[in-house]
Amino acid sequence: MKLYSYWRSGTAHRTRIALNLKGLDYDLEPVDLRASAHKSADYLAKNPQGLVPALALDDGTILTQSPAIIEFLEEAYPDQPLLPGDMVAKARIRAMAAVIGCDTHPLNNLRLLQYQKRHYNATDGDIARWTAQWISAAFSALEKLLASHNPGGVFAHEDRPGLFECYLVPQIYSARRFKTDLAPYPRLVAIDKACHELEAFLKARPENQPDAD
Amino acid sequence: MKLYSYWRSGTAHRTRIALNLKGLDYDLEPVDLRASAHKSADYLAKNPQGLVPALALDDGTILTQSPAIIEFLEEAYPDQPLLPGDMVAKARIRAMAAVIGCDTHPLNNLRLLQYQKRHYNATDGDIARWTAQWISAAFSALEKLLASHNPGGVFAHEDRPGLFECYLVPQIYSARRFKTDLAPYPRLVAIDKACHELEAFLKARPENQPDAD
Repeated sequence: MKLYSYWRSGTAHRTRIALNLKGLDYDLEPVDLRASAHKSADYLAKNPQGLVPALALDDGTILTQSPAIIEFLEEAYPDQPLLPGDMVAKARIRAMAAVIGCDTHPLNNLRLLQYQKRHYNATDGDIARWTAQWISAAFSALEKLLASHNPGGVFAHEDRPGLFECYLVPQIYSARRFKTDLAPYPRLVAIDKACHELEAFLKARPENQPDAD
Repeated sequence: MKLYSYWRSGTAHRTRIALNLKGLDYDLEPVDLRASAHKSADYLAKNPQGLVPALALDDGTILTQSPAIIEFLEEAYPDQPLLPGDMVAKARIRAMAAVIGCDTHPLNNLRLLQYQKRHYNATDGDIARWTAQWISAAFSALEKLLASHNPGGVFAHEDRPGLFECYLVPQIYSARRFKTDLAPYPRLVAIDKACHELEAFLKARPENQPDAD
């Protein structure tokens, strides 16, 4: 398998974590977003949306959109499951992942921030306020959901990381870049810390990618 | 089951379509977003994120986040499947749904538009330009994905609507409200038209909800 990735992309980061948690081998093909490589005709032929990540399977099939790629990996490689077996527990983990995947990460995506600078003359302070607004709303809700779903636990489900942690860790990385105050979210910070004791997460870190600055 | 819903919410709309496509009975519990009912202590106790939809199961369990709710319905009620059986086909449908669920709908959510009016003094013209930007980017990509995945078909997969159509139809409804030009997206418009010949979609329409204006 080959993952089209950019070191700092949160969606590529979460996909790398999922691949690593499953112990899968894959080649990395960096797509340099700063050089607009994602808008090249060659890349658009692979992913018409022009976003990373994309996953090329060994037969050449290309999958896009990290939520779909991760669900594919879960079904194709059921060892080291990322989701609980119980249907309600599974829905809760998927819901917490969607709080990040739908309601946090896309709002702080580079293209939205660039749009605000271009059309609203947004300052760095404006951008910081915008990003903090959505990260805080999501993280506050997640603290409550974690407290009710897995009180006393370290991870979101039982004693090892899974789908939720694939989404959370890149979002925490991003929140730190945006200098969001994480003090109100002790459980999320504790999950992030526990994840970073694991090779699967360390190997997926942006700064450990071949295309990192 | 009881669905906490708001007539014009795109995520509640997509969940109503999924419930209807599966032929499931459910009660509707309107949550009046304009009266801030989603921010009441009572509703926040059900869904700490303060968003619709939420689905209360018959045993009182509450599920949140439409992507997680719809995947739960798919697993709990496998008749009338919303997803293809083949893993790659499934990943493609989920990816197209995520183009809307992650990269379109959340960017045009009311809370983001209100934020722009409040902090950037955005005019109606600014809002129209913002919404058109993300809808157009997504719809252009979806036209290409549909042409390559199911050339000549009406729906996204084979001959009946499923997961993708649950996401698409509310997004088309929203695009029309925002007066986005849909002429460049004939395949998406044709899918929407075909869906509206089906009772499951008509029953889910915003204007057919008990809390509609």
